[in-house]
Formats: sequence, C-alpha cells, structure tokens
Amino acid sequence: MHTGTNLSVAPWEPLSVPTFDRNPADLGISECARLLACGELNSRALVDACLQRIGGEGKMLNAFIHVDGDMARAEADLSDLRRAECSPLSPLDGVPIALKDNIDVIGLPTTNGLGTSWMPSQDAGVVTLLRERGIVLIGKTNMHEGALGATTDNPHHGRTENPAVPGHTPGGSSGGSGAAVAARLCPGALGTDTMGSVRVPAAYCGIVGFKPSRGYWPISGVAPLVTELDTVGPMTRTVEDTAMLIDLPIERIDLEEIVLATLENFDGADVEPNAWNIYQEALARLRFAGATIRPMKLSDFDPSAARRVGFMVSEVEAMVAHESMMEACSDAFSPEFRSMLDFGARLPAARYVKAKRSLARVGRVFSEILDEADAIISLTGPQMAFPFDDEVPVTQADFTAPANFAGCPSVSLPILVAESARPVGLQVMAGIGRDADLVGIAAAIEKILDT
Amino acid sequence: MHTGTNLSVAPWEPLSVPTFDRNPADLGISECARLLACGELNSRALVDACLQRIGGEGKMLNAFIHVDGDMARAEADLSDLRRAECSPLSPLDGVPIALKDNIDVIGLPTTNGLGTSWMPSQDAGVVTLLRERGIVLIGKTNMHEGALGATTDNPHHGRTENPAVPGHTPGGSSGGSGAAVAARLCPGALGTDTMGSVRVPAAYCGIVGFKPSRGYWPISGVAPLVTELDTVGPMTRTVEDTAMLIDLPIERIDLEEIVLATLENFDGADVEPNAWNIYQEALARLRFAGATIRPMKLSDFDPSAARRVGFMVSEVEAMVAHESMMEACSDAFSPEFRSMLDFGARLPAARYVKAKRSLARVGRVFSEILDEADAIISLTGPQMAFPFDDEVPVTQADFTAPANFAGCPSVSLPILVAESARPVGLQVMAGIGRDADLVGIAAAIEKILDT
Repeated sequence: MHTGTNLSVAPWEPLSVPTFDRNPADLGISECARLLACGELNSRALVDACLQRIGGEGKMLNAFIHVDGDMARAEADLSDLRRAECSPLSPLDGVPIALKDNIDVIGLPTTNGLGTSWMPSQDAGVVTLLRERGIVLIGKTNMHEGALGATTDNPHHGRTENPAVPGHTPGGSSGGSGAAVAARLCPGALGTDTMGSVRVPAAYCGIVGFKPSRGYWPISGVAPLVTELDTVGPMTRTVEDTAMLIDLPIERIDLEEIVLATLENFDGADVEPNAWNIYQEALARLRFAGATIRPMKLSDFDPSAARRVGFMVSEVEAMVAHESMMEACSDAFSPEFRSMLDFGARLPAARYVKAKRSLARVGRVFSEILDEADAIISLTGPQMAFPFDDEVPVTQADFTAPANFAGCPSVSLPILVAESARPVGLQVMAGIGRDADLVGIAAAIEKILDT
Repeated sequence: MHTGTNLSVAPWEPLSVPTFDRNPADLGISECARLLACGELNSRALVDACLQRIGGEGKMLNAFIHVDGDMARAEADLSDLRRAECSPLSPLDGVPIALKDNIDVIGLPTTNGLGTSWMPSQDAGVVTLLRERGIVLIGKTNMHEGALGATTDNPHHGRTENPAVPGHTPGGSSGGSGAAVAARLCPGALGTDTMGSVRVPAAYCGIVGFKPSRGYWPISGVAPLVTELDTVGPMTRTVEDTAMLIDLPIERIDLEEIVLATLENFDGADVEPNAWNIYQEALARLRFAGATIRPMKLSDFDPSAARRVGFMVSEVEAMVAHESMMEACSDAFSPEFRSMLDFGARLPAARYVKAKRSLARVGRVFSEILDEADAIISLTGPQMAFPFDDEVPVTQADFTAPANFAGCPSVSLPILVAESARPVGLQVMAGIGRDADLVGIAAAIEKILDT
C-alpha cells in the first residue's frame, strides 16, 4: 500500500480496487470519473488533495513550474456545481490534469522551459478541448529547456527527480508531467512529443505515455519545436486512463489474432542488457498469450542516422521559433541550448531540405510495414532512467523518433519489474489514424504485462 | 482563315466550325476526338500532319527539343487499330499531345532545359495516365532552363518564338508547349507550373493554360523544382479541350449565380496600361452577363513579397535537385542559372523555414477568400509578351504564384483582342479540389470573352 510520503516506492504497481479511505490524489483518471459520477467524491476534494500533495511531499520532485491553486479550486467548484445539477460536461468533468509548460493556458504564464515567461492571450487548442469536457487544469509541469532534450535537468527551473528512481532523470522533455503522474501528484497530464518526449519519460518513470497520430489533437498554442512532428499526448498510469483522456473507446482485441512486428533495424542500438532481458521476457509472455511476433527488417532505415537528421531539423526549426526571443533576452537560454540553436542557424537550407526529405522517406518505410503488421513493438528506448550526472546516451530517441517521422500513433507501456529495479517501457506503434486500434492493442498487452 | 505558313497571324482567334478540308493539324483536341470517333479522321493522318507542321513551318518557332516521329507514328497506328476494332481506350485515343521536356517518357531523352540529357527508366506518372487513354506522345517541348524563369530563351536549346508576336517571348517556363499549341503544331500539350509556368505562357501566346489543384495529377517522373508547388497542367486552345485533356466534364454554370472576387492587393503591381484596359473591358462584359464582381482585399498579403519568397524557396530546392548533376557536369548549367543555384546553396536553413511558412500563410489567406467567393479573377500577369531583349519584368509571376502557394486550381483564358495586339490572359482561381467547378466557370467566362 502506497503512502503519500514514500515517493521512492515504485509507483507503477497496479492499484488495488478503489477503496475510498485512500487519499483521492492516489486515484487514476477512470477511478476519479467513476467516483465523481456516483457522487462518492467531488472535484474540489480531489483537487485539494492533489494540490496538497503537489505542495507537500511532491515538492521535492520539482515536477511543476507553476501551480495556481485558486484557479484550479474555482474550476473544481464550478464542476461540482455542474455535477450537482446533473449536467456534467463529460465523464471527466472535474478531473484535474497537469500540462507541460509549453502548452498555453490563459491566466498562467508559459515558460517553454526557458528562463523567461509570457502570458498567453489564448488557450492552446487542446486546452479548449479539455475545458469543453470540464477538465480542471491543475498546473504547468517542468520540462527540458525548449523541449529539445530528454533529461528535464532544467537550467532555469531545476531538475525534476524521477519518483521511481531517486537521483535519476525522469527522461524528457515532458519529464515534469511524467514525474507528476508517476508520483500520483495528479491523475494524468499532457506532454508533447516531437521525437519521443512523451514516451521516453513515460518509460523512465513507469507510466503510460501515448503519442497520437499527427493531427489527432491540435498543436495551436503549443510552443513550436518542429511543427510537422510536434504532437500533444496524454500521460497516465493505465491504458484505460489514457483512453478516457484522449477520448477513445477501448476496443476488445484478441491477441491471438494480431501480428506484432519487431524490427531488426533496432538491434544495432546499444541496448542496456537488463532492459533487453526484461523486453525478451515481455515478448515471451506475449507469445504465450497467443500473439504472433514476427521479426522484420526495413531495407532502407538506420535508426541512428534518422535520429541525427531529426535533431538537425529540430535545431533549425527551434532557431526559427526562438530567434526573436534570443535577440530580446538571450539570458533566457542556457549556453548549451544556444549552441544547438547556433548550429541550426548555420545550417544551409539545402541540407535542411534533404533532411526533411529523408525523414519523409523514413515515414514512408514505416507506413509500409504498418500495412503488413497490426503494430510494431520494441523497447521504448535502448536505455532506462540514468543518474543525472551520467552522459546522455546518444541513442536515447532512436526507437521513438520514427513514429514522429511517420506521423503514426505510438504508446509506451510500463513493463512490470521488480520493486527495486528501474522501470522499462514497451513501445507499440500502429498505422497513421489507427489510434483507436492502438488503444485496444495496448490494453490487451497491458493485461499480459501486468499479470 | 489561317494558313499554315502565316504563323504571325494571331492564333488565338476562335476556330470556325470544323470543316474537313482543313489541315488536320489545325484541329483542337475536342474536334480531333469527334472526327476520330466518327471515322472521318485517323490518328496516323493527324499525327503525320502535326509532324509535318512541326518539322516544316513550325521549325522556326523552335518549340520542340526532341521529336521522335517513328515512335509517334507507331503509337498512332496502334490507336487506329484499336479504333478499327471499336475498342478505343478513351475518347482521346489517337490524339497527339506534346510534353514539356521536364516530363519523363521512356525512350525519349529528358533535358529539363539543361545542356545535358538522360534517358529515363520510367514514364512520369502523368504519362502513364495519358498512355492509358491512348494519347499519342508527339514530342518534348522547349522550356526555360530548369523550369526556373519565364522567357524560354534557353541558352542550350535556343529561344522559342512567340507565334502570336514575332520577336517576343512566349513566356515560360512552359514556353515551348505554349508556342506549339498556339501555332497549331499539335492540338494540346502539357506544361508544368510551379509559380505560373503553365499560365504565363498561355497568356503570352493567347491560349488556355490550366494549373489543377495540387495532387490532381501525379508529379512523379517530373524533374523537381519545388515539389510542394510543382503541378502538371494542360495547355490547349479552348476550355473544352482542356476539360477533355484533364478528363473533367464541363458543368453548366450560370454566371448570374456566381461571385467573382477581384483582389485590390494586385493593384500595386506595375500593370501595363493596355492590359489593364482590356481587363477592365472583360470585367465589364462579365458584369453585363450578370456576374457579380466583388472587389476584395486580403489584409495580410503582398504579392511581390510572396513572389520573392517563392523564388527564394525555388532556388534552394533547385539547388538540392541539381546538386549532383552540377558536380558531374557544371557545363550543363548556364552562368545565370548557376548563380541562382549558388544563391540557393548559400541561404541559411532558418530563412528557408520562414519562407516556407510565409508561403503557407499566403495559401491560407487565399483559401479563406475562396470560401467566400466562387472564384478570384485577375489578369494572368501584369505584363503581356515582351521582346526578348527587354529586361524581364520582376512582377511577372505576382498574380500566378499565389495559386501554387494555396495549391488551388487556376486557369488562364485568352481575352479576345484585336488581331495585331499582343494576347492578354484572364486568370480565374477556385478553391482547392474544385477543379471541376473551375472548368465550368472558365467555360462560361470563355463564352463571354469570345463574343
């Protein structure tokens, strides 16, 4: 049984059946929805519990950059009024959700992880969608500077701790959202994912991170990194919670009827032996459950080369995104980030054009294989969470970035591991627009990984 | 009455009713189709007449880079066999069409207007479509070097004369196709249009040039300039011919029921007074016919700035397209073209990214106005055909390029002018995907302009 104070206990263990003597902050999204619907819980109590944990034992995680308790409580009270009038806006009316701090919310400053902030004049498109469903915005989470990197060791806002492995990075760039959800500071959060920034922290923290298809959710009002690759995605503790937050039903999938491809192209990456063993065990369990697992090889795809090209494009587009602010206040950028932007500024246009075309080719190759298999499975990344002072592994985004290049949906699911071990993520990718199928496949796989 | 030898007589005058004592080379596409269908003409005779005119009085125009008479005759004979067996592949089976020399045809060299050539191993996607309809490929037409420019004064293949105004440019970059069709060397041709390269020569030569919506026809096998803007389009002498070649029905449009927008943003361009007067007369005729003509102004659109940005993008993408050939044989490029590519090579990626975004914005602004009006009308260009030795007017593509940025269909229709005058084109643009509507509107307008 988890207590609020013991944040180092692995939080990715499955919750037992909800018993309401628990702290409401421990509840997942679907549990909140059920208890709010039957009146056993109100949004204000839920939000208060989350705020208390965020400001209490959660503080040491440094998962949040900005929390406006008054605003969240006011939204919760309005939700409770709607529930009292039997007119909730949706099943999630009153459920508090955290947002990565590159997503605009009127009334809250946006930092995009930089050493400055601005007050947006409009809600991000996805925030409008959440508000229409009565979802309460509980705060803005810490992130890797400018969303370009994956440690969430932020030079302006401090490092976010991995609640599952103290002293280790929660991954990034949506590391604050990952840590907040893993540590049960709130039932769910939104991150953004340009080359893996939702899925990597989900894997490192032991939660579910879902990158929907390009265009599933709007990216208006999200600080741009690479507009063609940027995707907003939910981070939750279960696939059911993800399905509710992303507003998709869970289709029943029979694992015996599906083909899961593994990619030999990923074998060259420098995979941590522990992660590899856990992954092999997961594959064995899936096979035992009847799934067909078929090794495949893409003839024209080198994951490391593709990732390098992806970073090149990111640095150019980040330069364009930050150019005017760099001129206005260069102090808001760390020397490391500035040097990446400088690289972007020096790159000739012709190389950028070729880079974009080679990313498009990767996308096509992936789309082809996703016509042949129901999904591709792999580790979410070659590594697990690592200590802050370790060098960042260069291959960190090798397995996640292709889904952005392809525009296809991809989810990281926690593989259940021994309590003291670092979390490991299993990535599942499906074809463009097949988000609902992917949710169904993920739910079926989750059941196998959980048992 | 035109005779084959008098090519300086304005060829944009409407044809009289087909009388078969005429030279078959004088026939338009729809006339060819009718006569082939009823057996009054066979493809071989038609192709022979075109080949004879191309090699005879048409030679001085220098409209073609490559003609393979044997191949065309063999295709014509096969077509006649199909007709004899009552199994034509389409109503256009046996109709000869010329292709701009940046469109690949197996068995014919492609030059792309450069001082070199290569033998393609595959037909361009659009060529496959033409072959499936039994259309005969009569030859490859001259073009502006690398499709980047609009005089068709080609340093490697010579200048193509404007058959309507001797000593003047036929426009470009599809100038050879424009001249060939205007001079009745063949009933129709294909051009390609990245910022106006089908419509400008159509306007300068007094024919119909249609740029369909992005994606209407495939661009595979077309030497790339700016892949997102490149569009293959038909060039013919009437809207009916265009409709047949592009395989769309002519919907009956009642001019009294449509709204045609004119753009005040175009007023700043340095429009030739003669062209302006002719355009105003055309507007008056359309108003008299009952069309509602509504002046509109886009709040965030400067045509000259947009065109400059379009050229910047073209130079970068042309650099990428030609890089390896430049290394292999730099002699194949004129110093002028090389200097444009060098500019492209030096441009920083960040400027390119901003350029692409500003083009996308122009596209959005145009799409919005095309939600409010059935079509936008304007002059096709601020100028008419000019002498080869005159400086190229910088605003030449200001009115045509926005349709490429928007991806929307756009057609240039000849406005009937006095015999000695230079042709003037009226441009009509409709919303993306509304190609069939545009054909209908163009047919209705053509009727008014012709009377």
